[in-house]
Amino acid sequence: MARIILITGGCRSGKSRLAQEKAEKLPGCKLFVATCPPLDAEMRARIQRHQREREARGWLTAEEELDLAGLLASRPEAEVVLVDCLTLWVNNLLFTADCQKDIGEDEMSAAARVLVEACRRHPGTVLLVTNEVGMGIVPENALARSYRDLVGRCNQVVAAAADEVYLAVCGLPLPVKTSGGG
Amino acid sequence: MARIILITGGCRSGKSRLAQEKAEKLPGCKLFVATCPPLDAEMRARIQRHQREREARGWLTAEEELDLAGLLASRPEAEVVLVDCLTLWVNNLLFTADCQKDIGEDEMSAAARVLVEACRRHPGTVLLVTNEVGMGIVPENALARSYRDLVGRCNQVVAAAADEVYLAVCGLPLPVKTSGGG
Amino acid sequence: MARIILITGGCRSGKSRLAQEKAEKLPGCKLFVATCPPLDAEMRARIQRHQREREARGWLTAEEELDLAGLLASRPEAEVVLVDCLTLWVNNLLFTADCQKDIGEDEMSAAARVLVEACRRHPGTVLLVTNEVGMGIVPENALARSYRDLVGRCNQVVAAAADEVYLAVCGLPLPVKTSGGG
Repeated sequence: MARIILITGGCRSGKSRLAQEKAEKLPGCKLFVATCPPLDAEMRARIQRHQREREARGWLTAEEELDLAGLLASRPEAEVVLVDCLTLWVNNLLFTADCQKDIGEDEMSAAARVLVEACRRHPGTVLLVTNEVGMGIVPENALARSYRDLVGRCNQVVAAAADEVYLAVCGLPLPVKTSGGG
Repeated sequence: MARIILITGGCRSGKSRLAQEKAEKLPGCKLFVATCPPLDAEMRARIQRHQREREARGWLTAEEELDLAGLLASRPEAEVVLVDCLTLWVNNLLFTADCQKDIGEDEMSAAARVLVEACRRHPGTVLLVTNEVGMGIVPENALARSYRDLVGRCNQVVAAAADEVYLAVCGLPLPVKTSGGG
Repeated sequence: MARIILITGGCRSGKSRLAQEKAEKLPGCKLFVATCPPLDAEMRARIQRHQREREARGWLTAEEELDLAGLLASRPEAEVVLVDCLTLWVNNLLFTADCQKDIGEDEMSAAARVLVEACRRHPGTVLLVTNEVGMGIVPENALARSYRDLVGRCNQVVAAAADEVYLAVCGLPLPVKTSGGG
């Protein structure tokens, strides 16, 4: 059964770097799962640069915007999987959902449980990066409010199942849950 | 003298659930104090569902939008009191204040000290739920800026008096202050 | 070589007060470095009141909006220096930058490294206050997005070099990095 590690943090808190550093301390074949569709040429260039840098250090890369559980099931050979990030996955689920019927918190929790089960069944270590988006003022935009509710639900489901949870603060990992309990 | 426990966290961080779980581990009569006026039919239905679920587990419920100190003084029989949440109480104070003369930070601190004194005089354990609202970008809306200043003041006064303080992160309680010090 | 202490936190989290309390526990001559240009009469009055209160407790005061490294080099006699705050420094750099060519994340990291070097060369203890601004929803305003990216970069560079890092939560200091490691 996989070891599951969740790294959360605010914007530019160093969470992705911390997750990569943790992954690179582990032995074996490493797979980076990008949940982010490139939105423009500049973003595509930045993503490709990061990908080349990782590949120079031996990483494989996969892109999956929606079916993270299916992707994990299809790549059992990866000994370390890093999913970056859950927030964009939630965003993709929200924008793919039938516009007449938004994805709700119960459906989000169900989708996160399916993901957690796929992580557990994976033979390697699965690291997941997410964002803290709920510690500011309530947004005036209704879609932003829904989004932050869904991200919060997703994070709670994954953190409950994780063996380790860290909050990135100024680039440093603050342990929130550790393997020995927490 | 009451034991005072403060649980803070962002939106959908699991803070209310964590507070209820902590309360239910304690023996004796439990009182839930809702500070939230139902704003519409959907919210009323959700509040009533949560209330029925708590009552099935033996909780009493009280509603108090402004005078939390008075409510605590009037209910000494409750061995465990859970106030959910201080952020809405601050909101209620802000919107009840004379529109010509907003409640200021000094008045907020004074109101929070009155609340803390009432918690201390209560014979039971008092758990209070609040929100982190100050870790985003400065809001453009002046009222939102005042509100986050007031919530911050309130949280500081209550945390200084509390025996235990937890920050909910992804549904997990990160200890910020513990009974043995902190 | 200076001891470097970083205190971060949200709005009204008590970070400035915690930094002053930490500074006042240390022996020797204390220098407060304000990075904040007074924007209006009310703000000027509040700054002057705080300054008089500090001076009554023996603090010196300096104002520096941009060249914090130069200021540190020019004041070796101060045994304790408190810089409040880095967020306004970033803001000042952003608004001073050539409007045709915004300061980017690489330039921000470089400026933060120059600051860190000046802190290290200073013979005293340097405390720096900053803000968490990245734990809310992505702002719609592009300048606000740039600003929170730059603050995040700055905080990461300073935290990596700091001996101690604290996150202020409800006025309480949560240790993120401690002298013995972290």
